Amino acid sequence: MRFSYLGPRGTFTHMALMQISSDEGGHIPAIDVPAALRMVRNEETDFAVVPIENSVEGGVNATIDSLSNGSGLRIVAEMLVPITFVLASRGPMDLSEVKRISTHPHAWAQCQNWIASNLDDAIHVPGTSTAGSAKAMADGAMNFDAVLCNPLSAEQYGLTVIAEGVADNPDAVTRFICAGREGTALPERTGSDKTTLQVQLPSDEAGALLAMLEQFATRGVNLSRIESRPVGDSLGRYQFSIDCEGHVEDERVQAVLIGLHRTSPHVKFLGSYPSAKQVPVKLRPGTADQDFVAARDWVSNLLGK
Amino acid sequence: MRFSYLGPRGTFTHMALMQISSDEGGHIPAIDVPAALRMVRNEETDFAVVPIENSVEGGVNATIDSLSNGSGLRIVAEMLVPITFVLASRGPMDLSEVKRISTHPHAWAQCQNWIASNLDDAIHVPGTSTAGSAKAMADGAMNFDAVLCNPLSAEQYGLTVIAEGVADNPDAVTRFICAGREGTALPERTGSDKTTLQVQLPSDEAGALLAMLEQFATRGVNLSRIESRPVGDSLGRYQFSIDCEGHVEDERVQAVLIGLHRTSPHVKFLGSYPSAKQVPVKLRPGTADQDFVAARDWVSNLLGK
Amino acid sequence: MRFSYLGPRGTFTHMALMQISSDEGGHIPAIDVPAALRMVRNEETDFAVVPIENSVEGGVNATIDSLSNGSGLRIVAEMLVPITFVLASRGPMDLSEVKRISTHPHAWAQCQNWIASNLDDAIHVPGTSTAGSAKAMADGAMNFDAVLCNPLSAEQYGLTVIAEGVADNPDAVTRFICAGREGTALPERTGSDKTTLQVQLPSDEAGALLAMLEQFATRGVNLSRIESRPVGDSLGRYQFSIDCEGHVEDERVQAVLIGLHRTSPHVKFLGSYPSAKQVPVKLRPGTADQDFVAARDWVSNLLGK
Amino acid sequence: MRFSYLGPRGTFTHMALMQISSDEGGHIPAIDVPAALRMVRNEETDFAVVPIENSVEGGVNATIDSLSNGSGLRIVAEMLVPITFVLASRGPMDLSEVKRISTHPHAWAQCQNWIASNLDDAIHVPGTSTAGSAKAMADGAMNFDAVLCNPLSAEQYGLTVIAEGVADNPDAVTRFICAGREGTALPERTGSDKTTLQVQLPSDEAGALLAMLEQFATRGVNLSRIESRPVGDSLGRYQFSIDCEGHVEDERVQAVLIGLHRTSPHVKFLGSYPSAKQVPVKLRPGTADQDFVAARDWVSNLLGK
Repeated sequence: MRFSYLGPRGTFTHMALMQISSDEGGHIPAIDVPAALRMVRNEETDFAVVPIENSVEGGVNATIDSLSNGSGLRIVAEMLVPITFVLASRGPMDLSEVKRISTHPHAWAQCQNWIASNLDDAIHVPGTSTAGSAKAMADGAMNFDAVLCNPLSAEQYGLTVIAEGVADNPDAVTRFICAGREGTALPERTGSDKTTLQVQLPSDEAGALLAMLEQFATRGVNLSRIESRPVGDSLGRYQFSIDCEGHVEDERVQAVLIGLHRTSPHVKFLGSYPSAKQVPVKLRPGTADQDFVAARDWVSNLLGK
Repeated sequence: MRFSYLGPRGTFTHMALMQISSDEGGHIPAIDVPAALRMVRNEETDFAVVPIENSVEGGVNATIDSLSNGSGLRIVAEMLVPITFVLASRGPMDLSEVKRISTHPHAWAQCQNWIASNLDDAIHVPGTSTAGSAKAMADGAMNFDAVLCNPLSAEQYGLTVIAEGVADNPDAVTRFICAGREGTALPERTGSDKTTLQVQLPSDEAGALLAMLEQFATRGVNLSRIESRPVGDSLGRYQFSIDCEGHVEDERVQAVLIGLHRTSPHVKFLGSYPSAKQVPVKLRPGTADQDFVAARDWVSNLLGK
Repeated sequence: MRFSYLGPRGTFTHMALMQISSDEGGHIPAIDVPAALRMVRNEETDFAVVPIENSVEGGVNATIDSLSNGSGLRIVAEMLVPITFVLASRGPMDLSEVKRISTHPHAWAQCQNWIASNLDDAIHVPGTSTAGSAKAMADGAMNFDAVLCNPLSAEQYGLTVIAEGVADNPDAVTRFICAGREGTALPERTGSDKTTLQVQLPSDEAGALLAMLEQFATRGVNLSRIESRPVGDSLGRYQFSIDCEGHVEDERVQAVLIGLHRTSPHVKFLGSYPSAKQVPVKLRPGTADQDFVAARDWVSNLLGK
Repeated sequence: MRFSYLGPRGTFTHMALMQISSDEGGHIPAIDVPAALRMVRNEETDFAVVPIENSVEGGVNATIDSLSNGSGLRIVAEMLVPITFVLASRGPMDLSEVKRISTHPHAWAQCQNWIASNLDDAIHVPGTSTAGSAKAMADGAMNFDAVLCNPLSAEQYGLTVIAEGVADNPDAVTRFICAGREGTALPERTGSDKTTLQVQLPSDEAGALLAMLEQFATRGVNLSRIESRPVGDSLGRYQFSIDCEGHVEDERVQAVLIGLHRTSPHVKFLGSYPSAKQVPVKLRPGTADQDFVAARDWVSNLLGK
């Protein structure tokens, strides 16, 4: 099994990939999200692991658009990774000795309050990625004392962790997906699943978004994420990237898909997969599989079938 | 074929029945609506013709409740009858000679303006029904000069029509239904059909009526009549008698029925039948049969079926 | 204070009137509902008491239509009366001696199961009203042994109650209203109030009923009764008689009224009055008066007012 | 009047600014969007011009988040700029002579098809911005023959345009806003206006998005843009950045704002301003100012005010 992922080695994306595959031999870093997905489409890898959503930054447009616009991919898993950093150096040292820190500017920004409280006269030495800073330190770079990186790259590059849980927002989390080709078998339903869709609205209809959301509501299917993305041909024309609760093998999700297919110019099914949190879905009355089956049987009976 | 109907012979209901069966030998008058329907349930007749709705008076509760509450009946046809009267007498006479008029008080009320304009000193002689007044005149009653009755009873009792189209509201119309037993074959679909349902709301849920109507709206099915009727066990608990556009063989109507069956404590299907007006239903985009079939095929395909 | 009511003396309507006025000197029976309301409009009485809804029979169309169609009346109170009967005679007697019972056919129908269980060979002697049968017995009529009437008429006509709580459905209840002229002062708001409206739908708009109900839903106002009534000019054109929770002095009810006035061809306000049950309304978040006031202040502030 | 804008000089943002202010003396380039807005907040400039939305790329998160999260800014104008490029060089030259082109990688990507058709063996020399490449050419850089930049920077740096209207998607357009401080006077309403809002949903309520959209729909106010952005504290908690049709001085927009303020934990008003396209809003029946005024007067009258 080969996995392309948003590299380099040791990124948060790599941490997500390690949750589902510990065999590093099959891990192939890609330069960006479209490249990671392209490797799956081109059959260079079997799956790609890329970020889709961050609790602070929001949706990852590169992922959403690459999934939607190219040929068929299918999401088969999601993974959550807490976005906290470690401060690491070549060997044990005291916090008070840390004067110069290398890391990616985003990481530096996300830890500013922590640094101000704990290391208030430390200086930032910009790196191209947190994993890149870790590698540079391991390779012997001398112009900084420590790096802010994630726990995985500290470990991979043999660094010593001198502070853990470094983050201004300790609950920050990024959600990653693992996508295979369209033909990949659907993961089994677990009772706590998500389905990802791309839905375009009929153009120039007041209330089109409301009508689209009603397709979910009348079947008791909750949304867990909705992002508007431009269709691309003019301002004001949107498609929506949506995660909803449930699996395409759930009758209620099938009913939503049928309703969307009828009323939207384009709907794309991007996969059903177990929810990372595995909290069982609370079904509203009348939305269990047996409710749909019983209702269909009743109608068949009316029709004398 | 035997038909029970709301009698006596010559009523507007009888006029409705004549639209679908001219063989008077099979016409059996009933004393009231429940009696006419009971004769079908007891297999004394094959069908019952009863009024369900009047453009001025509204729904006929006796019909709505008898259909809903007893064992299974199935509506197979609807008929519209304009509610206008004729002024009739034993022989030709001038309007100015008409001083005393027998009719049912309802009919008298519905013609008051016409009478004031045309016969301003005429006096009302109450009768038990308009058909009854016509029969009394034919039998030789002497205490009135003319009767206000419908055209059918004037003809049936051999009276002479001295004024036609008598009515204050010339567009008043009553809608009648023809109901057989539950096993009766469904009338073929014509593209301009109606389906009649009885739907109970889940109790004590704010927004339950709105949610029920959404089941129709998301499938593009219009309602042509909705009446609330008490469930009967306490104030504030309702069921709804509904006519919607379409036939149970239409995919969109089946989808509505499935949605209602899932979410309502009780749904009763009371029949699909050709609309009397035969105006083709204007389908909203995405609600034709082929849209449902294509959407289901797409979902089956996703499931690898 | 003079009150017209649906008579004769001793009816259930009279019982409802007694709940709000014990001075029988001011009670004036009317022959039917329109007559009772006409007496208010003509200033022959100050208020009329008429039934509006029964838990078994549903809405009282004569009341709904008379309120809606004529000039302005205003409902100022509602009263609930349980619909149970007493069996009464001229003096004490044993149930086994009761062979012939006079009452109105409706009352006989509502007690059929009770009679079958307790007096199985009793015979019905039809009367014009339950109060009329009671009066006839008091006046010395000899062709029946007992009457089925309401407790009030038994008392008023000096009869002896030989069985109480006679009813097949012991929870049956009728709701009555007391209506004055339009200028009558609004009853004070109690926190458990109802508002009665008549709302016509814009014609020929799919989804018009849904849109009308949304006007209530977006302000968190629940409906406790909704009846469709024909506009009268053609089949399929409806207006709705509605009771909603709340008083016109509640901000949320005012917001609903403003929304309805804007979007409906005709809205009629028929009164706000204390709910008979006095169960406090459960407000949804954001629908209390102070929420509206705060929101308006915020907007005024944006406008620099 | 001083304007900060997303620089450097000659960017598309600068083109947008030129639409409303031709005095270059007051134009102050900023290094990024947050910096441009910060200069307004700090009173270093009076207004900031920044991109908010692109027809191909979608919403500009840096702008949306900077507007929403910091202290009060107010949008007072929007400007549309078509995103097409010119090919420019130091002097006239034939297309066939162009072998090496400098530009920002985004611009290169957006012109790939055009280049393949017109200059198929040209090579990309990456620049830090399109304006930066233009400046470098003007300054005498020798490692490329031409630049892809916008018309403004070609003019500002004195280059010769050798091809115009270079773009794969000739309708691509970016929308810019001009924002002042919160106290800035509201632009007058024109009848074709937009209002920008930030609305947070009540957490963990199924149907909360639907309910929020109903606040707009019941007042007939259309949305022209909706973007979900994370609240930031956990995955699955969203706020929405919304543009709707209309001005806060329109009664229907005020009614929407009142409804949102009541039901959302946080609503932020970010300005009302003329729509760049100046297509008059098509009002739905019952949503004009006079409809609101008449409805309020009616309710005041009911209350005896």
